[in-house]
Amino acid sequence: MINEINEGGVTAPLGFRASVALAKIKGESRVEPDVALLVSDEACTAAGLFTTNLVQAAPVKYDKKILEENNDKIYAVVVNSGNANACTGVHGDNVTAMVAESVAKAVGVKKNAVLMASTGVIGNSLPHDKIEAVIPELVENLDDDSGEEFAKAILTTDTFPKEYAVMVETETGIYTIGGTCKGAGMIAPSLATMLGFITTDAKISADMLHKALLDVADTSFNAVTVDGDMSTNDTLIALANGMSGVAIDDKNYEQFVEALEIVASELARMMAMDGEGATKLVTINVVNARTKADAKLCAFKIANSPLVKTMFAGCDPNWGRLMSSAGASGAVFNPDKVDIYFNDLHYVANGIIIDYKLEEDVNKIMQDSEYEITIDLNNGSESALFYTCDFTVDYVKINADYRS
Amino acid sequence: MINEINEGGVTAPLGFRASVALAKIKGESRVEPDVALLVSDEACTAAGLFTTNLVQAAPVKYDKKILEENNDKIYAVVVNSGNANACTGVHGDNVTAMVAESVAKAVGVKKNAVLMASTGVIGNSLPHDKIEAVIPELVENLDDDSGEEFAKAILTTDTFPKEYAVMVETETGIYTIGGTCKGAGMIAPSLATMLGFITTDAKISADMLHKALLDVADTSFNAVTVDGDMSTNDTLIALANGMSGVAIDDKNYEQFVEALEIVASELARMMAMDGEGATKLVTINVVNARTKADAKLCAFKIANSPLVKTMFAGCDPNWGRLMSSAGASGAVFNPDKVDIYFNDLHYVANGIIIDYKLEEDVNKIMQDSEYEITIDLNNGSESALFYTCDFTVDYVKINADYRS
Repeated sequence: MINEINEGGVTAPLGFRASVALAKIKGESRVEPDVALLVSDEACTAAGLFTTNLVQAAPVKYDKKILEENNDKIYAVVVNSGNANACTGVHGDNVTAMVAESVAKAVGVKKNAVLMASTGVIGNSLPHDKIEAVIPELVENLDDDSGEEFAKAILTTDTFPKEYAVMVETETGIYTIGGTCKGAGMIAPSLATMLGFITTDAKISADMLHKALLDVADTSFNAVTVDGDMSTNDTLIALANGMSGVAIDDKNYEQFVEALEIVASELARMMAMDGEGATKLVTINVVNARTKADAKLCAFKIANSPLVKTMFAGCDPNWGRLMSSAGASGAVFNPDKVDIYFNDLHYVANGIIIDYKLEEDVNKIMQDSEYEITIDLNNGSESALFYTCDFTVDYVKINADYRS
Repeated sequence: MINEINEGGVTAPLGFRASVALAKIKGESRVEPDVALLVSDEACTAAGLFTTNLVQAAPVKYDKKILEENNDKIYAVVVNSGNANACTGVHGDNVTAMVAESVAKAVGVKKNAVLMASTGVIGNSLPHDKIEAVIPELVENLDDDSGEEFAKAILTTDTFPKEYAVMVETETGIYTIGGTCKGAGMIAPSLATMLGFITTDAKISADMLHKALLDVADTSFNAVTVDGDMSTNDTLIALANGMSGVAIDDKNYEQFVEALEIVASELARMMAMDGEGATKLVTINVVNARTKADAKLCAFKIANSPLVKTMFAGCDPNWGRLMSSAGASGAVFNPDKVDIYFNDLHYVANGIIIDYKLEEDVNKIMQDSEYEITIDLNNGSESALFYTCDFTVDYVKINADYRS
């Protein structure tokens, strides 16, 4: 049985402690913590999914290297917001290693036992001395009740911290999976950085943990962003310390994936809901596509069309924009066979609006803060969903002023 | 020699006349003409490029069919704004044919000698009776001085009419190429409809005219929009009536293409400049890419990134967003080899900012209404350019309210 835990987050599982500090990385005016540390009492197996952007931030390159040489004795992750440490050359690589190794020394673990993640402005040197100055304070303040502070310290333009956790009852005991993430941006098309951290006290091999991350990514984090549009810093790290005593094997792997997917999906939905300037979470559900690839192409194109997203902001039931985006997506279908639903309301049949009078009902649905649009291509049996948000005047305001 | 003509437009070449009328297609409140007619005194060879969107508007399907059976005896094009006649089923197809055939009858030509183009809201039935009611008036008012009225009547959310023409002096005489277009939208990602009409009094075969259109499309209309992102209605039609007496053959074809490219590029630049809510025209110039496809991918991705376009609106010299977009584009290059220029100012060398003090100078350039960004990938010798505009609060306002 899988139960939601009210007090979620990365410190929900046994043996994980977190802390935050104010290093003023972006400048003296910063008043909220901008560095966060997550430490496990026992060594963790670890897995990561990283941006596929050709331009990779220094911490992304660093973590990939560390996980290649050591994916079963990881103890900590240090995260900073306010500076992405991307496009910073060799200096950027060097300071990442310096910070990670300083943390390792302070925590008392081997130097390749610490990962790092960064988010913020690209192209500025990371003021690593500011981070190193707060490491003693971070280690001193580690606490198994600080998950929420951790979730807050990693935010950039996000408006609320994102945490979720579930407790899984098995025949051999109980284990917990917790997680946090930050996203914001208009998500995919704007290349906002996604950072995600998932912890568990289940015992699972690094390979199996990696496979589980891949298994849940499509319906969670990849349903708000996609490979081609990833930022320079996108990072999803999972740590498993085994302290619950419950081991994951072939028999209970499915249940583990199910639990992990709940955590990942909830976090992904929160990210979409918190798109910059967003006021609505809209789920785009493409069904009966010819292939899985077609379903994804179509859902992604619709979910990321500025014209569609502004139409959400205006609550305008302008279904022609959905048809036009679908048609431009590259997916193969017959436009004269398409059905469109807003929640359960059948609005378009065989590519034509059923009744103009329905516009009023659809407009009512579109005023909700959360609704689903189903595009039935009637051309096969594959489906894909995408979480998106409306595209408001505030998005532009936020991004035209990002650095000021 | 190729000279710009001050009084440009579709009626600049010999033998082309235009007229406009107010049919109130979108509703009784409309006060500006919304139907336009272009007629040639002599039969034209004709060529067209059309949207590759899977969802094609009725007039697009109609024109493709007409040009298959008759591309050398075309006399007229009728255009309406306010209704796209897309996603309108068989009824949409029928009314397109009815309007075109009514025009043909009124002009006194064969019924397959008239093309049609529409732009506006998708999914609403075209009130063809309103158009048919103004056909006598349209034919009555045909005038060789009405190019600008034609250019105005085809607009939707555009803020100014777009016209251009050149006169070409050859050894055998003088011919003229004129054109108009409408675009607006945020161009590519928003699927705004592009309609373009080019006329010439040169004598050129339909096949050669089609080839010339393809030859210039990449550096003009396709540099503000691309196949995959086309709307349901995108249409570019060229008509050549031969009335100048100058024949285009293999010997002077290059000069014809050069002249056509000038007209097409100027129109494309005006379209980008007139993106919804736009205040700036920015040219993205990717050079020294490994392949032409890489150069296009990279230029397109940068030109269409909401984060990049909002940065233009804010005049923020945040070059990391350019790097990140380039890296997400799919183009292959070494991030540590990239140079970036704003106009002639060298800002980024080998993937790193040259001097933070340059930010002030770049900010000054970004305050201009027109500037160019060159991204040198230093990975080959292919290049591509893209015209784009800034992404302002007004874009969202316009599109959240489009139909109200």
